[in-house]
Amino acid sequence: MAAAAPPPPPAPVPTPPSTVPEGSTPMGFPVFARIRLAQPTDSFTIFILEVSSQPFVEDILHNNNPLYQPKVQVVNLDLPIDDPERVTFRSTGSSSDVVIAGFVLFFPNYSTFLGKPGFYVEDLFVRECYRRKGFGRMLLSAVAKQAVEMGYGRVEWVVLDWNVNAIKFYEEMGAKILQEWRICRLTGDALQAYGNGH
Amino acid sequence: MAAAAPPPPPAPVPTPPSTVPEGSTPMGFPVFARIRLAQPTDSFTIFILEVSSQPFVEDILHNNNPLYQPKVQVVNLDLPIDDPERVTFRSTGSSSDVVIAGFVLFFPNYSTFLGKPGFYVEDLFVRECYRRKGFGRMLLSAVAKQAVEMGYGRVEWVVLDWNVNAIKFYEEMGAKILQEWRICRLTGDALQAYGNGH
Repeated sequence: MAAAAPPPPPAPVPTPPSTVPEGSTPMGFPVFARIRLAQPTDSFTIFILEVSSQPFVEDILHNNNPLYQPKVQVVNLDLPIDDPERVTFRSTGSSSDVVIAGFVLFFPNYSTFLGKPGFYVEDLFVRECYRRKGFGRMLLSAVAKQAVEMGYGRVEWVVLDWNVNAIKFYEEMGAKILQEWRICRLTGDALQAYGNGH
Repeated sequence: MAAAAPPPPPAPVPTPPSTVPEGSTPMGFPVFARIRLAQPTDSFTIFILEVSSQPFVEDILHNNNPLYQPKVQVVNLDLPIDDPERVTFRSTGSSSDVVIAGFVLFFPNYSTFLGKPGFYVEDLFVRECYRRKGFGRMLLSAVAKQAVEMGYGRVEWVVLDWNVNAIKFYEEMGAKILQEWRICRLTGDALQAYGNGH
């Protein structure tokens, strides 16, 4: 993704407005979840999933990136989440309540069949105490949404053939599991051998 | 791959030397094969395979790219190749004898397991009349060699599980076929649905 020109500096805001999504009425134990762009690198992109028991305050660090506007959702839980590592995983640059709950790491690929780029999801991770609450779906959906917005044609990733729960989850998200294709991998000593005029 | 500064203009060469690899004595019907870098783009890299019945003349267009030095081999055939489309596939910017016989298209990926980038080979193509002569191996080897030179950790591609000849060929080249992993693909309408606030 090419970096656009930086936006003009924002006007000072005395009381920053909360980013509470419209139409959501927090009940029980609300968890505010936000996906924001990680530091750009040459090799891949990371979306970070943050959670907070308080609404997110719009902050200049995370809300003024011209490449990606954070997506915020409210998830209403039956029980509050007890995160034993909330200090370790406190999100930098945000208010003290914001904790990092997971991430998705992906990079562009290219399909000559479609004649279009796509995204390949290399890693999707949600911390133990935040699992089975829809956050994995939220992260993968954010990648799919980004692909559509950029006019990309595919999102791909891999799964182990015996991981029936994961396969069911991915199929529910609209993915097809390609049964006939196998990955060929040249690595380690077999790859290094090509460096000596093989 | 980041573009390096262009090299200084080369001194004029009255008689350009032929690029005949050392230690090879053409016999029978030699075919000179050269792999060169295609135009760089943001999305992928292509290596073009050229063949010629005459030794390659060093040309400024293809030999002065700081990112890739063409690799030349001589393949001695029992019979000459009759290429019915040699006019259509004549290589631009080279002498009239040089024909494009194939290509390999690849792009970088990233392994969080290795903590290193790799290459993914999206397409490998050798024109019909040039098949079963070692040119496919030459193209795939060139990608593997490039990966090693750049310090990358893997080269990956896919194969259909019933394509036993291809699997045998890839295994002979040192690749492992991953039997348990399946590709998950989100595309078409199922992907587009994520563009509407899914």
